Order: sequence, then structure tokens, then C-alpha cells
Amino acid sequence: MSLPTSAEPTHPVHATNELFREAFRHHPAGVAIVTAANPSPVGITASSVASVSADPPALSFSVSGGSSAARVAEAETVVVHLMDAAHVDTVKRYATPGAARFLEGTWEPAATGEPVLNDAPWALRCRIVRRVPVGGSLLVAAEVDQILRGEHSEPMVYHNRAFHRLTEASLIQPRDAG
Amino acid sequence: MSLPTSAEPTHPVHATNELFREAFRHHPAGVAIVTAANPSPVGITASSVASVSADPPALSFSVSGGSSAARVAEAETVVVHLMDAAHVDTVKRYATPGAARFLEGTWEPAATGEPVLNDAPWALRCRIVRRVPVGGSLLVAAEVDQILRGEHSEPMVYHNRAFHRLTEASLIQPRDAG
Repeated sequence: MSLPTSAEPTHPVHATNELFREAFRHHPAGVAIVTAANPSPVGITASSVASVSADPPALSFSVSGGSSAARVAEAETVVVHLMDAAHVDTVKRYATPGAARFLEGTWEPAATGEPVLNDAPWALRCRIVRRVPVGGSLLVAAEVDQILRGEHSEPMVYHNRAFHRLTEASLIQPRDAG
Repeated sequence: MSLPTSAEPTHPVHATNELFREAFRHHPAGVAIVTAANPSPVGITASSVASVSADPPALSFSVSGGSSAARVAEAETVVVHLMDAAHVDTVKRYATPGAARFLEGTWEPAATGEPVLNDAPWALRCRIVRRVPVGGSLLVAAEVDQILRGEHSEPMVYHNRAFHRLTEASLIQPRDAG
């Protein structure tokens, strides 16, 4: 089997599920917790949250498997919390099937019902506008109605089943201007 | 203006384009270069590439503005290159409007025409299966047909207009088992 390039690359293969998983295990991602009230509070950790459009503000994420994921994807509105290094334990809790999630004192319901995690650096209240079946998953697009800005710590990244923090020491090159 | 939570959060605001941009500037992301032949070689840097489904393998990314972005999104097939720290200069070149991109010796056409960057850690040849207009952008879903695995260096992350590398020193906690 070979990828049909004229350059005869070293390790060409047809796509397999396992190789695909390996590729994305090595693709770093920010970490979010997406919550909804459907009908009771439900939440999942997602490493697929990405900005789609700034005007109007819209984002995407994908969900697959699990009743929590389905309840989040089926909700009319969700809150997308962008998490940082102070919250690694919270993120792991929301990623663990069966783990206790909405611990007392860690969240409050918005007036519209969705759970808002108290100490999230950013909480974006969104209306889901599209649910696109892709493979065995749902790709979700949502427009952002309200943004809550909380306390920030160091940025957190998920990569190869581990969490990293970004600091001045991890910089490759100085910040771009602008 | 206030986010309607019962907890009276500190900095609640309605979503604005600028605040949305700020939130996602602080959400770390892996970096990819997406190429196509439409009809000549075209490529863009994307920080929105995410895994959607492993079975069948599928991913998403979004594009907005720019003729290169439009040509990539309108192509039937694309190659998604997941890039790492050895390629920060390449990634910046593909992110810069008007910069020279397909430099001699850095790429080869696949038999099916798409440009494959020679030294990408991962190159995933994809068929675009959905193009979903969201706000002013296109959210693209693509199924992965072939995977090429190249040489790897340290993982690279884009955050707040700067590039970081992940190392053992940036780990928050040890790797999860499994």
C-alpha cells in the first residue's frame, strides 16, 4: 500500500482508525468543558473546540459516544468553558465516565438554566445552530451570545494523553507584533 | 449588561467580536497546513483542525476570507499536514498573505495532484464531505483516505500570536496510562 506521491515517501499507508487516532494524539489542543441543562446539568471535556467565525462569533466542537455527549449535542444552548492550567483536575473529572461532575460550590445555573462553572477563565454561552453527522460523530456549530471572563492562569494544552502548560520558557520565538 | 447567572460573576458581557477574538487568542491550538490543487497548488495555515470521528476517520477545519482559503475549501480533496516545532517557519509562511509558499524542493504532487509537503510529520489526504456556512466562515468536514507519516520533532502549539513547543518540562502531570 502506498500514498500515491511521485516522491515515494518513507511510510505511506492507507488511513486506518488506529493510525488516525495516533496522528491526532500527537496534535496538541486546548481543552474546554461544554455544559448544558438537558434537562439536568450535564457536561463533557472537549479538545475539539475551535473558533469558526468572529462576526458573528461562532465556534465548533464535535461529540461522539456516551450519553453525556449526546445530551450536550442535543441541547438548544450550551456553555463552552475554555479551561487553563489551574483546572486540570476539573477537566479530568469531566473527561471520566461516571465521575462526579457538578460538585457543590463549583457552578451556578445561568438564569437560562445552563450550568456555568464558577472559576472558568472564559465561559461562552452559545446557541447550537448546526449538527452535522460526520462518520460516527456529530460536528456541532454554535453561535456565541454571551461571554463571561473569569480569572486566568497559565494556558493548558492536551497532547498524547498528558496535560502541558505554556509559559515564557516554552516559547519557540517571540510573539508576533499586532 | 450582564450574563444572567445567579452568582453575579465579575466580568460578564454580551458577546462582542473583539472579546470573542480575545477568548480564542488565549485558547491554544495545534497547527496544520491544508493544501489543495485547485487548480494550481494552494495552501493555508489552520489552527482549527480537529479530529471528529475515528471510524471512519474524519476531521474538521474552518476557513474564512482570502482567495487561498476559498480555493482550499472548494477543492474536492485536500491534504491536511499536522505540523510540529521544526516547521515554525513553514507554518508562518503559509499564514502570510502573499508569501511564497510552494518553494522548490519542499513538496511533491500526489498522483492525484494535491501538494504533499515533504517533511510534514503527518499528511492526511482527505475528501471534503461537508461545507457548512457558519457566520462569515465555512466549517469543513473531511473524511481521511490516506495517511503519510514523516519525521517528527517536538509538538508545536499556537497561542496568543506566538508559537510554543511542548517538552517534558512543560508537563503539568505525568501521562495517563492507556
